[in-house]
Amino acid sequence: MTNDLRIDGGRLLRRLDELAEVGAITGPNGERGNARLALTDADRDGRDLVVTWMRDLGLDVRVDQIGNVIATLAGRRDDLAPVMTGSHIDTVRTGGRFDGNLGVLAGLEVVETLRQHGITPLRPLAVAFFTDEEGARFAPDMLGSLVYAGGLALEEALDIVGIDGVRLGDELARIGYQGPAPCPGPAPHAFVELHIEQGPVIEAEGKTIGAVTGVQGISWQELTVTGQSNHAGTTPMALRHDPAYVAAELAVFVRHLAHQLGGHQVGTVGKIDLHPNLVNVVPARATLTVDLRNTDEEALQEAERRLHQRWSQLEHDEGVTVTRRSLARFEPVAFDERIVALVERTAQRLGHATMRLPSGAGHDAQMMARLCPTAMVFTPSAKGISHNPAEHTDPDDLVAGGDVLLQVLLALAEAEEVPS
Amino acid sequence: MTNDLRIDGGRLLRRLDELAEVGAITGPNGERGNARLALTDADRDGRDLVVTWMRDLGLDVRVDQIGNVIATLAGRRDDLAPVMTGSHIDTVRTGGRFDGNLGVLAGLEVVETLRQHGITPLRPLAVAFFTDEEGARFAPDMLGSLVYAGGLALEEALDIVGIDGVRLGDELARIGYQGPAPCPGPAPHAFVELHIEQGPVIEAEGKTIGAVTGVQGISWQELTVTGQSNHAGTTPMALRHDPAYVAAELAVFVRHLAHQLGGHQVGTVGKIDLHPNLVNVVPARATLTVDLRNTDEEALQEAERRLHQRWSQLEHDEGVTVTRRSLARFEPVAFDERIVALVERTAQRLGHATMRLPSGAGHDAQMMARLCPTAMVFTPSAKGISHNPAEHTDPDDLVAGGDVLLQVLLALAEAEEVPS
Repeated sequence: MTNDLRIDGGRLLRRLDELAEVGAITGPNGERGNARLALTDADRDGRDLVVTWMRDLGLDVRVDQIGNVIATLAGRRDDLAPVMTGSHIDTVRTGGRFDGNLGVLAGLEVVETLRQHGITPLRPLAVAFFTDEEGARFAPDMLGSLVYAGGLALEEALDIVGIDGVRLGDELARIGYQGPAPCPGPAPHAFVELHIEQGPVIEAEGKTIGAVTGVQGISWQELTVTGQSNHAGTTPMALRHDPAYVAAELAVFVRHLAHQLGGHQVGTVGKIDLHPNLVNVVPARATLTVDLRNTDEEALQEAERRLHQRWSQLEHDEGVTVTRRSLARFEPVAFDERIVALVERTAQRLGHATMRLPSGAGHDAQMMARLCPTAMVFTPSAKGISHNPAEHTDPDDLVAGGDVLLQVLLALAEAEEVPS
Repeated sequence: MTNDLRIDGGRLLRRLDELAEVGAITGPNGERGNARLALTDADRDGRDLVVTWMRDLGLDVRVDQIGNVIATLAGRRDDLAPVMTGSHIDTVRTGGRFDGNLGVLAGLEVVETLRQHGITPLRPLAVAFFTDEEGARFAPDMLGSLVYAGGLALEEALDIVGIDGVRLGDELARIGYQGPAPCPGPAPHAFVELHIEQGPVIEAEGKTIGAVTGVQGISWQELTVTGQSNHAGTTPMALRHDPAYVAAELAVFVRHLAHQLGGHQVGTVGKIDLHPNLVNVVPARATLTVDLRNTDEEALQEAERRLHQRWSQLEHDEGVTVTRRSLARFEPVAFDERIVALVERTAQRLGHATMRLPSGAGHDAQMMARLCPTAMVFTPSAKGISHNPAEHTDPDDLVAGGDVLLQVLLALAEAEEVPS
């Protein structure tokens, strides 16, 4: 029975190890990480390895105009749209071994398991890796899936210049991955991505599998506070117009705001720059960033409104001016409830402690959600550490994620409609 | 009557202008400033000019082993210790024209006024300029007066290496200002320094003359907050150990602390450095400086205690560690009440709107206060701006300060005891 089908966990782990040899780096405590920035030689070598595996599995491999690679296992009914899975194999400069790679190689493992058992699903099954998910060399992140989903014009994407001054399109051609398949790409029947959580929630809750309900909306703002630089010793408190004090009040407010709004609201001030930044000088200027995220767009807008009220009040009280620059703004994405429930049900059926949670990080799945019913499967991340060679997920949890992915993809590929 | 004696204001202003030509710089809005870092060629040229003026006035000019220059007008009783005035002529790299220079040249102007009117005071009258008051090239600041007062051993001072890698003693010899007069120097009968306020208080209060009651004690601490770096999107608020939040709470607390303690307590967080300082990362570490100043040592210790309590509480609440490094700690200096009252009385008698205030900045007078009854006279600083070519004091106020200095020095030099 296909319900009893499981992946070959050892094979999945070996492929993860083998891919991790490409662009391998070592962390400060000997941890093994990866540096495969998008469209570098290391990325090409990683792509070549994965494409070899795809061809070895007899899949139909197609490369599209932005370099996304999609390998398809034929179904019993090739007139039906494929069920797609996948993720990315590019990494940040000091990346871990699982971020992205797990979703791609687990997809291949699902295909190999089906082949091994002589199973041909009703629908075609596609395994993709998308170009430049990290955005660490070419902004924005999730670029390949964004172009696939029609959210960014191909020519615009090809003209993006990276942090090293080179054009994305030139690098794509140089490494031999500018393919003929058109962008935007065709809508799959459904999309499911397996990924490590990159956060501490599943581990902290003592669970093994997360059924991801959606991706948080993101609001990144840069606030510049301009006041009056003065001597720290000779300027009475009542005569100060201190941008550092205002920046500090705003950082404290962001913390309180997250608690006030509760739910999935998070807020972070990760960057503060004072000028001139000297012990005995009231600064002339402070620049801080505010990262607000919420799964609910109205709540996110409310957070932005309250923050604005607070800085307006501080402008008045302290006699400073605050100017705002938006660095990024994405609305929340809600995944397909039927597939979220399918993931949850499947993980529970396989005996894994399961929870629902939203994703705090962005993923290719949120772009694919524009095209078709979509959801994600999360495995735990030890201490929530990611983008770091110390990134770790227990092998048992990686295999559990692969098993859930197998069963969810099978359920979707065997039915004409998404089960509800 | 000597009570009606006034300085020649035009002559004082001309000398200020002439000295300002040595090491002249121009500010962004055409302001005329000075760059005469201690013991540079520019400092030597400034010294040479002032020494020429001292000799032209027939004064007995002596250079001591740390390069302090003391010019003495003989009194009627040369067995009595001199009344001393003075300040410094070195500047910061982007200095103004009045900081230090005013006190030295007003001292010379007092001497010239006395000579012109054929007045020989009972006590000798000495005009000094001290080496390296700014500390901008060789730390610590107020170095020359500190060595004069016996607070720092001569050999130790000569061995100090400057920001440009050269030894203080070598530079002192190079510019020809390592003199024979011994350090520490002899205690004067009294010391009075005229200086611009370098803060906004006198201007804000609409006054002309400040009778300086003392110099604030200074506590400079660097606090390093270590927490847990995490993803800003995936880390729930309850699981954070955020050093930036703790730094912000401490900066807000410093503001509240100053208001709670009131009086002359000031508190400033002028420097904050986050690591890695990225919009979407809860930082691993925050370093901030806290500048606390108070004229009262017990109150300053209370401020330090409350700050410590606050960071201990935050360590516990947020799950971070805070380590402390002392960058500087000076106890407050209280000036001689008799001379403070004399300055106040004299300024009022001359018809100047007068106030008492402590000095927020350090001055040579606070070192001389270790040796003899001491006080200072302040003139306003427009908008409190100093250490900047835009530093400005109205000519009338400069002259008013010179007149007060003349009358105070006369009162001190004509009496065997400090008047009370």
